[in-house]
Amino acid sequence: MKKFLGDDFLLNNSVAEELYHQHAASLPIIDYHNHLDQAAMAANHQFRNITEAWLYGDHYKWRAMRANGIDERYITGDATDKEKFNKWAETVPYTLRNPLYHWTHLELRRYFGINELLSPDTADEIYSETEALMKKDSHSCIGLLLQMNVESLCTTDDPVDDLSHHRAIKERIKAPKVYPTFRPDKALQLDGAESWLGYLQQLSDASGISIQSYDTYLEALQQRVDFFHENGCRVSDLGFHQIPDFNPQAGGLDQLFASALSGKTLNATDLDHLRGHALAALCKMYHAKGWVQQFHLGALRNNNERALRELGPDTGYDSMGDYSQAVSLSKFFNHLDNTDQLAKSIIYNLNPRDNDLFATMVGNFNDGKIVGKMQFGTGWWFLDQKNGMENQMNSLSNMGLLSRFIGMLTDSRSFLSFPRHEYFRRILCNLIGTDVINGEIPHDMDLLGKMVEDICYLNAKSYFDFKES
Amino acid sequence: MKKFLGDDFLLNNSVAEELYHQHAASLPIIDYHNHLDQAAMAANHQFRNITEAWLYGDHYKWRAMRANGIDERYITGDATDKEKFNKWAETVPYTLRNPLYHWTHLELRRYFGINELLSPDTADEIYSETEALMKKDSHSCIGLLLQMNVESLCTTDDPVDDLSHHRAIKERIKAPKVYPTFRPDKALQLDGAESWLGYLQQLSDASGISIQSYDTYLEALQQRVDFFHENGCRVSDLGFHQIPDFNPQAGGLDQLFASALSGKTLNATDLDHLRGHALAALCKMYHAKGWVQQFHLGALRNNNERALRELGPDTGYDSMGDYSQAVSLSKFFNHLDNTDQLAKSIIYNLNPRDNDLFATMVGNFNDGKIVGKMQFGTGWWFLDQKNGMENQMNSLSNMGLLSRFIGMLTDSRSFLSFPRHEYFRRILCNLIGTDVINGEIPHDMDLLGKMVEDICYLNAKSYFDFKES
Amino acid sequence: MKKFLGDDFLLNNSVAEELYHQHAASLPIIDYHNHLDQAAMAANHQFRNITEAWLYGDHYKWRAMRANGIDERYITGDATDKEKFNKWAETVPYTLRNPLYHWTHLELRRYFGINELLSPDTADEIYSETEALMKKDSHSCIGLLLQMNVESLCTTDDPVDDLSHHRAIKERIKAPKVYPTFRPDKALQLDGAESWLGYLQQLSDASGISIQSYDTYLEALQQRVDFFHENGCRVSDLGFHQIPDFNPQAGGLDQLFASALSGKTLNATDLDHLRGHALAALCKMYHAKGWVQQFHLGALRNNNERALRELGPDTGYDSMGDYSQAVSLSKFFNHLDNTDQLAKSIIYNLNPRDNDLFATMVGNFNDGKIVGKMQFGTGWWFLDQKNGMENQMNSLSNMGLLSRFIGMLTDSRSFLSFPRHEYFRRILCNLIGTDVINGEIPHDMDLLGKMVEDICYLNAKSYFDFKES
Repeated sequence: MKKFLGDDFLLNNSVAEELYHQHAASLPIIDYHNHLDQAAMAANHQFRNITEAWLYGDHYKWRAMRANGIDERYITGDATDKEKFNKWAETVPYTLRNPLYHWTHLELRRYFGINELLSPDTADEIYSETEALMKKDSHSCIGLLLQMNVESLCTTDDPVDDLSHHRAIKERIKAPKVYPTFRPDKALQLDGAESWLGYLQQLSDASGISIQSYDTYLEALQQRVDFFHENGCRVSDLGFHQIPDFNPQAGGLDQLFASALSGKTLNATDLDHLRGHALAALCKMYHAKGWVQQFHLGALRNNNERALRELGPDTGYDSMGDYSQAVSLSKFFNHLDNTDQLAKSIIYNLNPRDNDLFATMVGNFNDGKIVGKMQFGTGWWFLDQKNGMENQMNSLSNMGLLSRFIGMLTDSRSFLSFPRHEYFRRILCNLIGTDVINGEIPHDMDLLGKMVEDICYLNAKSYFDFKES
Repeated sequence: MKKFLGDDFLLNNSVAEELYHQHAASLPIIDYHNHLDQAAMAANHQFRNITEAWLYGDHYKWRAMRANGIDERYITGDATDKEKFNKWAETVPYTLRNPLYHWTHLELRRYFGINELLSPDTADEIYSETEALMKKDSHSCIGLLLQMNVESLCTTDDPVDDLSHHRAIKERIKAPKVYPTFRPDKALQLDGAESWLGYLQQLSDASGISIQSYDTYLEALQQRVDFFHENGCRVSDLGFHQIPDFNPQAGGLDQLFASALSGKTLNATDLDHLRGHALAALCKMYHAKGWVQQFHLGALRNNNERALRELGPDTGYDSMGDYSQAVSLSKFFNHLDNTDQLAKSIIYNLNPRDNDLFATMVGNFNDGKIVGKMQFGTGWWFLDQKNGMENQMNSLSNMGLLSRFIGMLTDSRSFLSFPRHEYFRRILCNLIGTDVINGEIPHDMDLLGKMVEDICYLNAKSYFDFKES
Repeated sequence: MKKFLGDDFLLNNSVAEELYHQHAASLPIIDYHNHLDQAAMAANHQFRNITEAWLYGDHYKWRAMRANGIDERYITGDATDKEKFNKWAETVPYTLRNPLYHWTHLELRRYFGINELLSPDTADEIYSETEALMKKDSHSCIGLLLQMNVESLCTTDDPVDDLSHHRAIKERIKAPKVYPTFRPDKALQLDGAESWLGYLQQLSDASGISIQSYDTYLEALQQRVDFFHENGCRVSDLGFHQIPDFNPQAGGLDQLFASALSGKTLNATDLDHLRGHALAALCKMYHAKGWVQQFHLGALRNNNERALRELGPDTGYDSMGDYSQAVSLSKFFNHLDNTDQLAKSIIYNLNPRDNDLFATMVGNFNDGKIVGKMQFGTGWWFLDQKNGMENQMNSLSNMGLLSRFIGMLTDSRSFLSFPRHEYFRRILCNLIGTDVINGEIPHDMDLLGKMVEDICYLNAKSYFDFKES
C-alpha cells in the first residue's frame, strides 16, 4: 500500500519516480494562463489568514460546500473567517476522490509544512499553524509564488485595463516575471446591450479613439493591442460557447455595428456574423504581433440567475455546454490560415467529449514552420484533475505529438494553487513511466527525461515570445 | 489468477475486500426506481419456471439473442418455455464481456445456489434445478425480494393508475415497503394525437375533473399528485429526449392546449413551449409536496417500426440519442430555482458522452440547504455495467461529491435483478480500495467504511422522505 | 519491466500470451476494407525504396511531421527520397505514445527484420538495409501482402471504375484474393456542382445509360452494381458526415434531380431529401445482391483550403466532426428494415464520443436471422490505435456481443500497414486475458480461444459472401 501524498504520490513505478524526481520536480514554472490579481501582486499583498487566501474567491470550494449542505452564510456570507474555515474543514472529508482533496492537502504540505489531514478534528490546530505563517514574507503574494519556483506568469486582462499594476509589478518585483493577457470578451459582446455600450465608452476612453463605427471600433482595439504589446503582452485569450459561424466573404459589418451601437439587439445570425468578423480582425492583429492566441470553448455560464443576482458572476454556477464545435472552429482557423495570418494557437475545451475532436483539429493547421504551432490545451477547469489530464494527454498522444505539448497552467484565481503544476508533472511522469514498464515505449531515459523536461518547461519557454527584461 | 465470480469478485485488493465484506455486503437495499409489476407483488405471484421470470420481459436478453441469430420464435414467440431457455443457454457463452454474463451467473448463484456456468451443456440440469426452487415461497415475487434484503422499493406508475395494487401490497405485504412513482410521460405528450386524446379521457376519469382547458388539465394532474401522495408516493419520474426549450415568461398556453385538444398537431416549437410549461407546473407541485423528481434524458425509442408493430414498445429496440442537453436543462432548473420551487432532483443520462456535463450541471443548483440536493444518477440502462458505473462514479467524484451520492437502483422489470446492487457495491468498494492502495486517498477505514455505507444505503435513506408506516 | 516490442508486446499476462500465440498469431488476414492501389497490385509494383512505400501517401506521417515543424518540402515537396526519410527519422522520436511509433517499428521488424529504433542516429543504416530488401520479390506489393498472410482484401472503388485492374489481378495473382468495393460518394454528391455534372457524364459512359432523369440515374447505378457484382464485389462503402435526414414517404425526386442536373444548387433540405432517397435506393440494390454495406460517418474533411489548393484531398487535413448521428441513422435503417431490405451493415464512427451510440444503434436492427447482422465497426482512422480499439471493443462488449464481432481491417493506403492486424489481435487477447486474470470471465481456454479465432478471422470469413474462385 502506497502512502497517501508521500514522496512518490501518483508515481506508480520506478521509471515514473525517476522521471519525476530527476527531471520534472525542480524545473521552474511558466504559468502562462491564470487569473491572479495584479493589484495584489503590485502591492505584494499579505493575506490576513488562510481563509482570505483559500476561501474568498475559490468557486471550486464553494460548489463543494453547497453540495455538502453548507449554508451560504459560511461560503460567501457574513460568517467570520474562522467559521468559514471550519465549514470548509467539515466539508473536506466529503471531497474524497475530488481533486479538492488532493489540492487542499498538497497546499497545506507545500506552503505550510502541515501533514495533518484537514477535518473538524484538526481544523483549529491547522488554522493556528497557518495563521502564524501567513504573516511572513514567504507567504505574501509574491512570496507564495517564489516558494513554488514560478519563473513567469500571465494574468488575464481586459483591453481597457491601463496595466498600471503590471507596470508597478515590473518596477517593484524582480521575480517572477508577470505579463498581461489580452482578453476582449466584453469588447466582442457586440449585442447592443447596455452593458456593452457602457463598455464601448470605456474602450473609447482607454484608447483615445471615439468609437463611432466598426472601423473606429477596430482602431480602438488595435490601439489596445499595441498598448498591451508595449507592456509585455504576448498572449491573447477568449472565452466563447463556440467560435461564431460566419461568412468571411460577406460584408454588411458597418450597418450591423451601427445597429448594435444604436442599442438594437442583433438577431443570433447577425450577431455571429459581426462577432466572427471582429474576432477574425483581432486574430490578425495578434498574428501581426507574433502573439499566441488562446480559445477557451464550451462553457455554459451563469446557470443560476438567483445566485447571479445575489453573488455575481464566477461564484460557482458555471458548467459545461454541449455546443457544436468542429465546423465553425475549422472555418475560422481556415480563414486565418488562408492569408497566412493564423497565429500560434491553443484551444481548450470544457466538455471532455470534445477532447479527441480538439486534438485532431489542431493537426489541420500545423504548417511545418513552427514546432507545435497548434496546441490542444491542457485539461481546463473541471478537467484540471487526474482523469481529465490523463484523458487530455492520451488524446493528444494518440492524435498528435505529446512531445511538443506546452503543458500545464493553473488558470487559477488562487495564489495557493501552484502545486497543481507538481500534480500535473507527477501525472505526466506516471503515464510515461507506466508505458515503459508495460513495454509500450522504450526504456531510454535520455529520450524520456528530455521529453518530460520539454513538456514541463522547455516547450513553453520556446513557444512564448516573452521578453525577459 | 482470480476465481471467476468468487467471494472477492471485482474486489482487486484487500482494502476493497474489507470495505465490501465489512461495510457494504449486509446493508439492506433501497431500490428507489424500478419497473416491477405491482399486480405480481400484490398477488405474490409465483413464476411457473425460470423462463417466465427471466425471459418473458427482459429486452436486454432479447437483444443479445437477436444479435446471436436466434429466431424471434424463441424470443417472444410461441416456442415452449424450455425451448426458450435452451436458446438463451445457447446465447450465454457469446455474451462474454457483456454484463448479461455476470448478471446471469450472479442470479443463478444468489437465488438458486447454482455455480455451474450456463451453456447448452448445462442447460437441462440447470433448468431442472431451478424448476423445483421456483415453486417455493422463497421464490415467489416477494420471496425473491426478501432473499435480497430489499427494504423498500419504488415502482413506476402512470398518473391515471388507481394504485389499488399498491394499497393491496401495503395491506398484505409486510416487507419490503413498496411505493409508487408518479410518471406523467403520457400526460405530457400534448401533441394532439389520438393516443393522447384517449389518455386525457382516462385522466379525466381518474381525477374526476373534466379536462376542457389547460387549467383543468393542470387541476387533474394536481388531483393525481395529491392522490399519489396520499398513497405514499414521494418520487416522480420522467423520460424525455431532452428537457423542452421554452420561454417561461411567454404565455399562449390556453390556445395551444385548446388546439391540441381539438386534435391539431402542434409544431415542434409550440409543442416544446406547451410541454415545458406543463412540466414546470408539475415540478412545482412536486416541490410543494417535498418529493424527489427524476429525469431520464436521452433515449431514442422505438427505432424499429416493424418490431413495434409486431411486438410493441419496450421489446429491445431502443437506444441512445445524441440530443443537446445543457441549455434547456439549465434553463429549466433555473426557472424552478428562481422562485425557490426546485425540488430535490436526480438526472440520468443515457448517452455517456454527457456524463461530465450532467455531473457539473447538478452543481449549479445545490443551494446549501439540503445535503446532496441535486444528484447525478447512477449508470442508467445501457450504462448499468462495470465500465458505465465506474465512469459515472469517476465523473461524479471529479466534478462533485461522491460521498453524497445516493447510489444504486435496478430500473428493472425483473424480480431476479437485485444482485445488481451487489454488483454496484463491489465496484464502488473496488474504486475506493484501489485509490487507497495507490496512495490517492488515505487509509482511514472509519472514514471510508462510513462513505461506503452512506453511498450504498444511508444517503438514500435520508434523501427520500418515505413514510415507513 | 517488459521489453519494448518484444514477443509479448501488449500481452500483459499469461492468458493473453496464450490466446495470442496459440490462437491469434497464425491466422490469415481478411482485410475487408482498405485503399490499396489496384494498379500497383495488378503490376505487382516494386517500390524503389522505403520512402516511396512509406512516405509517398501516408497522411498520418505527414501530419506528425508538420506538427514537428518539418518544412513541406520534405513532406510532399521536391526533397529527395533520402532527405524525406531523414526528416521522418528525425520526427519518429517525437511520436512517442502516438501509434506511429508502434507502427513504424513493427513494420521495420516484420517486413525488414530491423530491430533498431528509427532516429537520426540510425537513419542511414536503416535506409541502406531496407534499400536492398525493397528490390526483392518478397517486397513487391504482392510480396508484402503474402509476407503478412493476407488471404483476401477489398479495395475501395468508384462505380465508374472499369475494374480492369481487378480483372488483371484475378488473372495474374493467385493470392491474396482481391475484391472491389462499391463506393458511390461522388455519385451521391447530387448538388448540381460542376464536379458532379462531370462525374455524371463518366457514369453515363461507364454504364452505357444516358442519365437524363432520376430514373436513368438509378438505372445507371444499378448497371454498375450489377457490373461490380459480376467482378466479385460483395461490399459497398460510403463516407458521409451523417446519414441524410429525409422523408421516405415524400416524393418530388424527379424535379429535384432535374434541377440539380440543370446545374442549380439545391438547398440543404432538398439535397438531404434527394441524397437520402438515392442512398436508400442503392442500399436496396445492395440488399438484393446479398452485399454487406459499410457506412463511415462523422469525418470533417478538407479543413485547410490552402493545403487543398496546393496538395489536393487526403493529404492530412481531415479531422473529426461533431454531427448528430442517432436520429437520421435510426430512421434510415428503419426505412430499409420496414420492407425487409436492410442488408448486413457495418457502421464506423470517427468521433469516439459516438462509440456507445453506435454500439447500441446496431442492436435495434438485428433480426435474429443472420448472426451478427449489424456490426459496430472497429476503430476507424484516428481511432485505429490502442485506446481507440480498446474503447470500441469495450463499448461493443458492454452493449452487444463482442464474440460476434468481425474484427479488424487496415483502411490503409500503405502496403506496409498489415502489422496493424497483429496489433489489433494483441490488444484483443490482452483485453480478454486481463478479464480472466481479474476473475471477470472464466478461465475456459477452449471457449476463449474459439472467441479469439472467431473475432480475428472466422467471423469475417462467414460474414462476407466472397466467392473464392
